[in-house]
Amino acid sequence: MKKYCFGIDVGGTTVKCGLFQVDGVLMDKWEIPTRTENQGEEILPDIAKAILEKLQEKGIQKEEVAGIGVGVPGPVNSEGDVLCAVNLFWGYKKVSKELGEMTGIPVKAENDANVAALGEAWRGAAAGAQNVVMVTLGTGVGGGIIVNEQILSGAHGASGEIGHINVDHEETESCNCGNQGCLEQMASATGVVRLAKKALDCSDAPSVLREGELTAKAVFDAYKAGDKLAEEVVEKFGDYLGGALASVTCVIDPSVIVVGGGVSKAGQPLIDCVTKYYKKYAFSACKATPIILAALGNDAGIYGAAKMVI
Amino acid sequence: MKKYCFGIDVGGTTVKCGLFQVDGVLMDKWEIPTRTENQGEEILPDIAKAILEKLQEKGIQKEEVAGIGVGVPGPVNSEGDVLCAVNLFWGYKKVSKELGEMTGIPVKAENDANVAALGEAWRGAAAGAQNVVMVTLGTGVGGGIIVNEQILSGAHGASGEIGHINVDHEETESCNCGNQGCLEQMASATGVVRLAKKALDCSDAPSVLREGELTAKAVFDAYKAGDKLAEEVVEKFGDYLGGALASVTCVIDPSVIVVGGGVSKAGQPLIDCVTKYYKKYAFSACKATPIILAALGNDAGIYGAAKMVI
Repeated sequence: MKKYCFGIDVGGTTVKCGLFQVDGVLMDKWEIPTRTENQGEEILPDIAKAILEKLQEKGIQKEEVAGIGVGVPGPVNSEGDVLCAVNLFWGYKKVSKELGEMTGIPVKAENDANVAALGEAWRGAAAGAQNVVMVTLGTGVGGGIIVNEQILSGAHGASGEIGHINVDHEETESCNCGNQGCLEQMASATGVVRLAKKALDCSDAPSVLREGELTAKAVFDAYKAGDKLAEEVVEKFGDYLGGALASVTCVIDPSVIVVGGGVSKAGQPLIDCVTKYYKKYAFSACKATPIILAALGNDAGIYGAAKMVI
Repeated sequence: MKKYCFGIDVGGTTVKCGLFQVDGVLMDKWEIPTRTENQGEEILPDIAKAILEKLQEKGIQKEEVAGIGVGVPGPVNSEGDVLCAVNLFWGYKKVSKELGEMTGIPVKAENDANVAALGEAWRGAAAGAQNVVMVTLGTGVGGGIIVNEQILSGAHGASGEIGHINVDHEETESCNCGNQGCLEQMASATGVVRLAKKALDCSDAPSVLREGELTAKAVFDAYKAGDKLAEEVVEKFGDYLGGALASVTCVIDPSVIVVGGGVSKAGQPLIDCVTKYYKKYAFSACKATPIILAALGNDAGIYGAAKMVI
């Protein structure tokens, strides 16, 4: 009888670990450091050790564990092999196979943005929804697509790469991916700062953004305080992101869109601005699709990872 | 033992009917007229009659029939109810329920663009592919998304509405859907004519398009013959469609994109032009995703409809 499972979220600094009952109750949650030295060769042994020690601590037999789900910051193929994970200093790595051999427990690995989307769809802001789009506004813009309560990985593990939808054919600066005009260049934390710099350079209007450090948080704080130039920047951000989400819903028509990541901490004013532009561009049948804030924060990954093996 | 099934494709002029073995072999194919008088109230009884007569003709018992799949030109919900089908003069109609009662055979109804996509994914140009995007360039621009060999319908039956992706935020003319700048305004048969008219109005350059009737076929014929103005129009068409398909693959990352519908009869030169722009805008992992011509023509609907009940 399988009673338990593990949800593991591997980040560049820490590995977040969760022990769950298969009914979804989180029993224990802890972190271990991500040791990236020597091409990150200690990361999987460290995770295996953490899991085996937790089993001993709780008096759980391996036979009672349904599996280990793992979210990894990089593209993952259908065999659970990571193609590369820059932040972990990994090249090609057979995560499912290696961690499975180290623990003697079945392992399922997936891209971390997809796993976070599954977490929000299972126990978070979109709990109970069958089809969900999640967009994560962090250093970059990530995304995950849930169809019939399952992660949609795609033919090249690139499903949900919402950050690389072209939103500006006139853009001349390049995105990290090599293209020009990606959503990530406009709606990530660095993208918002880039938009703000452009606006400051193009105008002499007074703005609190001309003082102090220019960050995405500073832009949204100024927006909430009524700063005119910040308003211009956030409206542009909303136009780009709302427009891209409208394209996304023409493709997969989800029941809900979840917005997470560091930038989303700006909260409801951000959602309201994005929703305004979303409604402008969205197909009639999808205009009322709700756009909501993520609810699980940093725990989305461990929840989604656990759900993969339940 | 279920040995047979029917695939029915309801169009505004004719209903295409197919009798299949459940292994996918098309045994018989015929058409009946679509009687749209009196709010199309005879359409379903006509289909029921055609099916029951075919069973008698072939000596097949109802018990041997797995089901009837039906493609309908309008949005269809998960119960198989059509919300409206303008070309059939239908309002809300419980197609699955009504046709099921008339025939005594289980019925599954779906939107016709989705059904055609399933047909191409099953027995057509994309045979064997798990995840497929099909775009149909006809009077409008339709689309269908196949995920894990199943139609993706979406929360409001609007999945695959690729024609209503916004591709031009500057457009001021309205699409039939009420928005401005939809792909359908650029890449449908009427869209191509619209682009050509604009190009003719904005220039004094000589062109064969200044003589005779201006149709999408005339534009592509002139393009193949080296007409400079037609080239400008087709490049613009390719930019819009290639760009939209690049956005689509950022969302669902299919293994193949199929292009069908009347406009696609322009053939490989059209595909080559669209592919050029697709590669320009697509995310790196998806740049090599093949864009190919549909193979089943008018039979895609009956194949896809049959597959729904196999």
